[in-house]
Amino acid sequence: MEDKKILLSHGSGGMMMHSLIKDIFLRHFKGNELAKMGDSAILAGICGQFSLSFTTDSYTVNPLFFPGGDIGKLSVCGTVNDISVSGARPLFISCAVIAEEGFDKDMLEKIVVSMSKTARLAGIEIVTGDFKVVEKGKMDGLFINTSAIGISPVGRVMDRAGIRPGDRIIINGFTGDHELSVLLARNEFKFSAGIKSDCAPLNELVKEIMDSGLPVRFMRDPTRGGVATTLNEISDGSPFGIRIREADVPVREETRAVCELLGFDPLYLANEGKVIVICPRESSERILCLMRKHKYGKDSALIGEVVESPRGRVILDTAGGSRILDMLSGSQLPRIC
Amino acid sequence: MEDKKILLSHGSGGMMMHSLIKDIFLRHFKGNELAKMGDSAILAGICGQFSLSFTTDSYTVNPLFFPGGDIGKLSVCGTVNDISVSGARPLFISCAVIAEEGFDKDMLEKIVVSMSKTARLAGIEIVTGDFKVVEKGKMDGLFINTSAIGISPVGRVMDRAGIRPGDRIIINGFTGDHELSVLLARNEFKFSAGIKSDCAPLNELVKEIMDSGLPVRFMRDPTRGGVATTLNEISDGSPFGIRIREADVPVREETRAVCELLGFDPLYLANEGKVIVICPRESSERILCLMRKHKYGKDSALIGEVVESPRGRVILDTAGGSRILDMLSGSQLPRIC
Repeated sequence: MEDKKILLSHGSGGMMMHSLIKDIFLRHFKGNELAKMGDSAILAGICGQFSLSFTTDSYTVNPLFFPGGDIGKLSVCGTVNDISVSGARPLFISCAVIAEEGFDKDMLEKIVVSMSKTARLAGIEIVTGDFKVVEKGKMDGLFINTSAIGISPVGRVMDRAGIRPGDRIIINGFTGDHELSVLLARNEFKFSAGIKSDCAPLNELVKEIMDSGLPVRFMRDPTRGGVATTLNEISDGSPFGIRIREADVPVREETRAVCELLGFDPLYLANEGKVIVICPRESSERILCLMRKHKYGKDSALIGEVVESPRGRVILDTAGGSRILDMLSGSQLPRIC
Repeated sequence: MEDKKILLSHGSGGMMMHSLIKDIFLRHFKGNELAKMGDSAILAGICGQFSLSFTTDSYTVNPLFFPGGDIGKLSVCGTVNDISVSGARPLFISCAVIAEEGFDKDMLEKIVVSMSKTARLAGIEIVTGDFKVVEKGKMDGLFINTSAIGISPVGRVMDRAGIRPGDRIIINGFTGDHELSVLLARNEFKFSAGIKSDCAPLNELVKEIMDSGLPVRFMRDPTRGGVATTLNEISDGSPFGIRIREADVPVREETRAVCELLGFDPLYLANEGKVIVICPRESSERILCLMRKHKYGKDSALIGEVVESPRGRVILDTAGGSRILDMLSGSQLPRIC
């Protein structure tokens, strides 16, 4: 009967989540935008020469405060980033809070202040909200949902169908820090490695890339399931493959050390301030330079390229050879976003 | 220390929720749209001759299935209605589900089917979504957030500032059924009165009113806190008062009987398929006729009027005299929406 139940790994961002969404949601919610399973729906035809981007995300991170962020900051950054990587400018965001009876009001206010500060930083306005309370013991602390609207000129929308063999793959810095910082903040381990979440709003970095006029094929933020899962989402069913050089993927020394100790692979750990940019080879160096000048792109690196074969797969080149890098299959950690 | 904690009544839609939102959220989220505390934000200036309406709502109803509906239907109707009463046509909706580990997949699918059916009925497209899983025991079953986008011609937006003494107040049918049906579905009482939730999408009914060209001043859906709370939200701080005739407010026989038995006032019970329409006296009879022709308006009634004084208050005329009808001050029942 276990296959009749929702498991933690159904929420991990990996393979099981993808099949659950296909089996249960997409089978009944028939619509083109949803079927693309992108971070945002791109809605043309109602707003003149602009497309609307529309996205939603719930945040259940535990603990609510962690080095480098908190659920308030996370709930604004995560949703702003989903809109940004669609190529749109985020404009308006909602804030729906569900709190457990007995939740501390001062802590709620700290979270609200953090949302407000982050929204200002991201240049997005919180325009609508909702507040619900659930009986003590019927939920754990506080959950937040944010949904956002962005706009982009019609036709500027990126689609992974535009990706071509030879394209280059760039990431804007170190991977894995968010998920590890949340895990270590749970105090289940006897050490703190000083790892801080990368949680940041990427709208400005993305805007600079888009405004440069340099050709970009596709962008995506590697959150749940990490870089490995996001690259698989991009290549899955596509007429191309992706080849990544492990040595070129930026991972902090301390992150690598903790991963080795606990048996995690940094390529599968969630980020909350990272974007993967896919662009033609010719523009890759200039885009890389431009990204490195930005506060959230200083450690940007070229990590691989799009290849003709094997189609639909991601290959990882390591010191010892090369292997297929699959989508996350189970769950490394629950409630990291 | 109790005043440092979130209480169930902070989520009831009444007085305590309003002050919490003002004290904690509005103090930090500075923005005109939010400050209006409307059901939807009305966003002009980005979409040509159209305003965008944007709204969000989380649903934590317990139990998930009740006579007349379920959390899936509710989550689409509630949000569609918030957009509709702003005078806009709902177009796109998001679906963010948080499920407890171990939740039954078949039940999830039933809920998804219900969302899909209701969305089709309401002519709205589910375009983006999110799915999260929380460890067993860390939440109760399933929560859904839906956010929606609608459009309306710029200038058609209704504001309570347009309400004038002499205006009439109409409701589209029986009040109190939703909250009672949810309460009785909890099986804590030894009887079932056959009361069904009024949960329904009101977009078509509202569209017919708007398309008639008959002048309408304001609309609002009386959900949490009921008709009494919604009328207080409308009159609070306004240069007019509202006068309601108790005998004219439609309440089903069985609803009235259960209310008397359990000590509830139907005017404070949540509805999920009701709209309060405020219009000039001259157009009130024609609007009433038009509403009565619609499936969701058959039992529409004129329940009162806008008066010059007492300003900012709601007065209830009863068989025995008249009294001030306050906003809900505590919480009648938690988790009814």
